[in-house]
Amino acid sequence: MEKLEIIPLGGIGEFGMNCMGIRFRDEMIVVDAGMGFPEETPYGVDISIPDFEYLDEYRDDITALFLTHGHEDHIGSTPYFLKKFNVPVYGSGLTLAFVEEKLNEHGILDDVLMHRVEAGDVAEVNSFEVEFIHASHSLVDCFSLAITSPAGTVIHTGDYKIDDTPVIGKPYDLKSLGRIGDEGVLALLADSTNATVPGRTPSEQAVIPDLEDIIANAEGRVFVTTFSSSIHRLQLVFDIAHSLDKKVCLLGRSMMRNVEITSELGLLNIPHDTEVDLKDARQMNDEDIVYLVTGSQGEQRAAMWNIATQSYKGLSIQQGDTVILSARIIPGNEKKISKMIGAIYRHGGNIIEEKRRLIHVSGHPSQEDIRIMTETVKPKYLVPIHGEYRMLFRHQEFAKNHLGFADENVVLIENGDVLELSDGSARVTERRDIHKVFIDGTRDGEVEYDTVRERRKLAFSGVVSLVVMLDKETKELLNEPDISLRGVTRVNPLNGTLQSARDSISEAIEAMTFKDLSDKTWLTENLRVHLKRFIQKETGTRPVIVPTIVEV
Amino acid sequence: MEKLEIIPLGGIGEFGMNCMGIRFRDEMIVVDAGMGFPEETPYGVDISIPDFEYLDEYRDDITALFLTHGHEDHIGSTPYFLKKFNVPVYGSGLTLAFVEEKLNEHGILDDVLMHRVEAGDVAEVNSFEVEFIHASHSLVDCFSLAITSPAGTVIHTGDYKIDDTPVIGKPYDLKSLGRIGDEGVLALLADSTNATVPGRTPSEQAVIPDLEDIIANAEGRVFVTTFSSSIHRLQLVFDIAHSLDKKVCLLGRSMMRNVEITSELGLLNIPHDTEVDLKDARQMNDEDIVYLVTGSQGEQRAAMWNIATQSYKGLSIQQGDTVILSARIIPGNEKKISKMIGAIYRHGGNIIEEKRRLIHVSGHPSQEDIRIMTETVKPKYLVPIHGEYRMLFRHQEFAKNHLGFADENVVLIENGDVLELSDGSARVTERRDIHKVFIDGTRDGEVEYDTVRERRKLAFSGVVSLVVMLDKETKELLNEPDISLRGVTRVNPLNGTLQSARDSISEAIEAMTFKDLSDKTWLTENLRVHLKRFIQKETGTRPVIVPTIVEV
Repeated sequence: MEKLEIIPLGGIGEFGMNCMGIRFRDEMIVVDAGMGFPEETPYGVDISIPDFEYLDEYRDDITALFLTHGHEDHIGSTPYFLKKFNVPVYGSGLTLAFVEEKLNEHGILDDVLMHRVEAGDVAEVNSFEVEFIHASHSLVDCFSLAITSPAGTVIHTGDYKIDDTPVIGKPYDLKSLGRIGDEGVLALLADSTNATVPGRTPSEQAVIPDLEDIIANAEGRVFVTTFSSSIHRLQLVFDIAHSLDKKVCLLGRSMMRNVEITSELGLLNIPHDTEVDLKDARQMNDEDIVYLVTGSQGEQRAAMWNIATQSYKGLSIQQGDTVILSARIIPGNEKKISKMIGAIYRHGGNIIEEKRRLIHVSGHPSQEDIRIMTETVKPKYLVPIHGEYRMLFRHQEFAKNHLGFADENVVLIENGDVLELSDGSARVTERRDIHKVFIDGTRDGEVEYDTVRERRKLAFSGVVSLVVMLDKETKELLNEPDISLRGVTRVNPLNGTLQSARDSISEAIEAMTFKDLSDKTWLTENLRVHLKRFIQKETGTRPVIVPTIVEV
Repeated sequence: MEKLEIIPLGGIGEFGMNCMGIRFRDEMIVVDAGMGFPEETPYGVDISIPDFEYLDEYRDDITALFLTHGHEDHIGSTPYFLKKFNVPVYGSGLTLAFVEEKLNEHGILDDVLMHRVEAGDVAEVNSFEVEFIHASHSLVDCFSLAITSPAGTVIHTGDYKIDDTPVIGKPYDLKSLGRIGDEGVLALLADSTNATVPGRTPSEQAVIPDLEDIIANAEGRVFVTTFSSSIHRLQLVFDIAHSLDKKVCLLGRSMMRNVEITSELGLLNIPHDTEVDLKDARQMNDEDIVYLVTGSQGEQRAAMWNIATQSYKGLSIQQGDTVILSARIIPGNEKKISKMIGAIYRHGGNIIEEKRRLIHVSGHPSQEDIRIMTETVKPKYLVPIHGEYRMLFRHQEFAKNHLGFADENVVLIENGDVLELSDGSARVTERRDIHKVFIDGTRDGEVEYDTVRERRKLAFSGVVSLVVMLDKETKELLNEPDISLRGVTRVNPLNGTLQSARDSISEAIEAMTFKDLSDKTWLTENLRVHLKRFIQKETGTRPVIVPTIVEV
């Protein structure tokens, strides 16, 4: 019986970095190459990407990269992937437009072959046939994938919601999923993000009444902050503003860029004479403008944060402004967002949050959507993907308790696993540790784990530079040791600890033999440990010690 | 007309560090001295405390410290406060028991005069009369304070909920509040934590049915994790375990300590033969034990985290275990808790969260409780305290829209403000910047802002130690400059950048005049800037440069 291997590199048990290899015999296709936002930002890390070295052993097998949609957690690491594995890329017009920008920034746009596909298309790559199925989501131009090989058909949902009335485009193509389901599906790899949420996820249109009401009745200026990739939401803001005879002014680079790209592709449809730039907006009455602004997560470099706390291009919150936070709060951002909200209130603005009004809906399936998906596809095996562990487990639990799946037919996997699927069985044949790779945004360079570890120590206790000068011949100490401090507490000239530390090093050196002093490696390490212990004993802190021995 | 000044040092616009001076003429009493948990933990900061130096100008005025209750955000900085201002402390038996431990750790227990008071007591301190009013909260033995001076009466609610059926002790003493309200209250300083939540906060007893059901029907072991200070909750777990013929085993230092203290004070009432230690628990059947465990916030040093991820005293999560997360998620802890939950699922345990069952209730008043409080006290002025800005603003909004307060009768203040209250007016007469003070837990020493700033830089880009050796007489460079790196990226021996950096420094020195080289301060700074620019240009990173110049 033919076998298929499912090899997730990221996105399982974590938010972000979605990437999965799917292998049949000696052929592998890869689905998505996303980025993540790790907690290591204090240590000079901007983003994380999957560890693509892990795919080195399949180097000759990899034939193509398929992209489900254009969110950063699905395409953010495409340049890094493609630099390593230059294979053709398949994606929708919008997805590829986003990817093109990235490849351009990395200077590899001309080196990559891209296939723009549409819903209903089928790509044949050797033994694989991949059908692109129109999916509804918070972004537009998204796909679910039906991946067929001689080992059977696997459905990879990508991110989806079952939206019968999206703002832009058609409803989810459940018909195609049903057709493929009827033909027999080996496994469904399915979005778990909202598997903890009962009921159905409301349509993108559900926010219209409240958004309209708030914008219509606001007394001062209105700021709507949302993800610049929430294209349905942007369309709604334009439509509502237009119907109320207001103009929309875009603030923030990614907002402008995404509006431009999606307009050019004919996805976003800006009503005639509705968009104004900031210069024109300044000339108009406050109540005639809706600002559509980046920075819903309280990002300190984004427009909304600056408007809230001080100013952005001269704009700041003033008495009577209304700010609509039309986005979910991504876990980990609560404090930043709360600070931003506080700043808005303090400047006299009013905040409308999701808790109070229906101004945001999720882009992911809730439990009843998961039911519809699963019952439409009728897979033999269900593999929860895309989510933290609690979501994957609740997805599993829901399938077992409410969708009639047997234990062995819901398979939980982890990043680094090799899941072997065949008609008769689904089992993890290999379980490998896989790390994430840290990227420093300034030059897209990798930040090694060791570097992060060192920075963590520096952050916690600071650094002490110790310079000791010895006579080249006699190995005698020529000067008093030199000690410099950065970020160190409780060692200072005033309390005498600094002088004691110098004395202690001098004494240690004087007690050493000529032979000890001649072994520079040993001596360096010995002085490092000596000073470390001294400082720890005196102060209780453990700064990093950087010893230098110079000989003249 | 007599005036009263309200001077908040912390707790306004932030969670934690509650502390407030209340001044009449040249007398000041202080209410609470709490700690906070700042975001600066990566930089070796454990807790934050109010900046008590701010009170130096009132040094001779301060007559007493009044404590509303024993939560860390109300008593955590008492030792620091009392070291600076050794005044008598008033508090309940439990509050003082907690404070005593702290003073003991700081070696000042014998130096402090403590007055143990009970609900209904009135303390007279010169012109101030302070009545202690029994308050219900998630902790027990808590007070609201009625503070009377010739300028009128102010009610400070402390933390409260209006619980008609607490598990331990009596309901909130609304009767006394009503009596004082009838006599006329100038201002109500009131808890805003849940001012965003409609309706009423359920009683501490509300969790009984679900807790009982889950514990009774769990198949394996049961772990209940909650705050060790949620004394009502602890009582319930003991009671439920007892009624089901199970034993309770306490895990975690603070859990054991708080159970001991509250039992001794007769607040917690452990049913006969219900508590067992871990040694005995090991001998018993899994289904006969309920573990009551610290670490509901995913703290990595607490028992629950260790049980979930690896083991704690040999205990780890196994297939069939049930973990009840009977606590709220404090904002900022979401990621840690989510990781802990993931680990529990991965080891085969099941998690019961607040979202799914009623296993936690808040200790703070929701909007309808705020209504009851405000209508009972009938203050002239309402001053929202204790909460982030969004909560304070929503408290204000609720009072204006639903409690009939005029704009000028709800006063928003900030830490560092001086709010002057008299019968005729409430106005902020001074607005001063006040910072928090960072404390490093290891020796309770202060970590200066500058140190944190330096550590932040070190964390972000690492450190470069540069050692340059000059001839004392000729100022000639004696050796090649020595460069050591910690936590630095892209400067290394392999790519040649390290050697270029050395060369660049050598060249810079060679280009300098004898006079330049003789000015060591100028030279040090010049070389620092030179190397900084060189590295930034070559690598795009900005490590901290620590230059040392030695002369022989």
